[in-house]
Amino acid sequence: MAARKTSVLLFFFMFLALSSAFPRNKNKYKPCKHLVLFFHDIIYNGKNAANATAAIVAAPQGANLTILAPQFHFGNIAVFDDPITLDNNLHSKPVGRAQGMYIYDTKNTFTSWLGFSFALNSTDYQGSINFIGVDPILIKTRDISVVGGTGDFFMHRGIATINTDAYEGDVYFRLKVDIKFYECW
Amino acid sequence: MAARKTSVLLFFFMFLALSSAFPRNKNKYKPCKHLVLFFHDIIYNGKNAANATAAIVAAPQGANLTILAPQFHFGNIAVFDDPITLDNNLHSKPVGRAQGMYIYDTKNTFTSWLGFSFALNSTDYQGSINFIGVDPILIKTRDISVVGGTGDFFMHRGIATINTDAYEGDVYFRLKVDIKFYECW
Amino acid sequence: MAARKTSVLLFFFMFLALSSAFPRNKNKYKPCKHLVLFFHDIIYNGKNAANATAAIVAAPQGANLTILAPQFHFGNIAVFDDPITLDNNLHSKPVGRAQGMYIYDTKNTFTSWLGFSFALNSTDYQGSINFIGVDPILIKTRDISVVGGTGDFFMHRGIATINTDAYEGDVYFRLKVDIKFYECW
Repeated sequence: MAARKTSVLLFFFMFLALSSAFPRNKNKYKPCKHLVLFFHDIIYNGKNAANATAAIVAAPQGANLTILAPQFHFGNIAVFDDPITLDNNLHSKPVGRAQGMYIYDTKNTFTSWLGFSFALNSTDYQGSINFIGVDPILIKTRDISVVGGTGDFFMHRGIATINTDAYEGDVYFRLKVDIKFYECW
Repeated sequence: MAARKTSVLLFFFMFLALSSAFPRNKNKYKPCKHLVLFFHDIIYNGKNAANATAAIVAAPQGANLTILAPQFHFGNIAVFDDPITLDNNLHSKPVGRAQGMYIYDTKNTFTSWLGFSFALNSTDYQGSINFIGVDPILIKTRDISVVGGTGDFFMHRGIATINTDAYEGDVYFRLKVDIKFYECW
Repeated sequence: MAARKTSVLLFFFMFLALSSAFPRNKNKYKPCKHLVLFFHDIIYNGKNAANATAAIVAAPQGANLTILAPQFHFGNIAVFDDPITLDNNLHSKPVGRAQGMYIYDTKNTFTSWLGFSFALNSTDYQGSINFIGVDPILIKTRDISVVGGTGDFFMHRGIATINTDAYEGDVYFRLKVDIKFYECW
């Protein structure tokens, strides 16, 4: 009898354990690693060559490479090499570089498509994190995919939540990136 | 003896179970989620600004941004923001937008490299799906990778099979996308 | 007593087994599949149209599409369709094509951001492998992510280690790619 009671209880606790391991609601997943970083983008506008960290390199017909295109910049591709910092200060010591591109890709609002990487090189982290996703810029927080990583982020996957922490016109913006890894190795 | 027979049988069934869980043939895997969607691309050709959903934004030397490049459009990059529909009708109510870019990348046939996302916003699905892959356009069905997702597609991975459902010259094409997720969360 | 000793030992060996299954050091993971391939890139420079396998298609303001941009080519995007070979000989029979783009993305050194695929079509392998990552070109070996695959590489993930095996000025380079898959299906 005692054995039977034990196994019923065991089954019950296994069921509980499974419920929390495979929840329906994604918010119930607990990240295996968590990072919050900032990066800073200064786009070249014809006058700021020394400070610019990004440049428009492609534009639709009729537009040029120093002024973002009309119609919500649709068709512009910018290449960037932005400093990554631990806090929101552009002048803090960088812990790495955010490198890749963003593409403005809607004609009637501001959205972009992101393909980029974090190359981290600090005492805490050495390695790269690779991101892909859509960024509906005007929404407060946007989720993109962490599709892989190397070094300390070997084979990691996760979700990065992006938040425009500050901006100045079209020239400067600062993104806060909250990276939650759900697959660590 | 009876115990021995049981354990032999058990071993046999375990073997069967393993065979179906880790089959050699990929077609034996069963998707954990399955979606079929269509998207519609109308490329800007200098005359259709109001209706165009895509634009050539980069071209090799000697080509321009209103006519696709010679040599199988090699080197053209197009940015798109295409409506996604549940059926093959361009005028059906969109359930989201396909956003990103395609790159024509062969000199002696039509192929493209795809980096794009589905941003879905319907009663059935809220979230994004991120795709990467080669698209040998002239082949009937082409497989690309689903490398991540957000929202209802949190951390999902899978395979998308693309099929050119219809096209009109170089200006309009409609793609049917059969998305099979093999990793769901 | 004997039973207790056994279970203590069992626990000890389980601990050892777990230690090797989830090691801290990534180098302890053993790939489930391993491939070494070469690809060859000849960039168009205005004179080599017949042989070129890549073309500059985007450039920052002031630069053009036949000469890589000043400032470490920052902002150039090149589209490529490069032959893949089993050895380091450009003239060996190709086993597939490396297709996609590279973006030069640093103003004060040579680095690039890669988004490309291997489309393999040989007796040994049929399928595609999709890559994303940062490539600090001047470092001897660089790791990027294998974010997905199709066909024989269905749902695979892994790490590709890139090594510049040879180069001639800015026109030709040959990359050795050591692909280790850690997730096979």
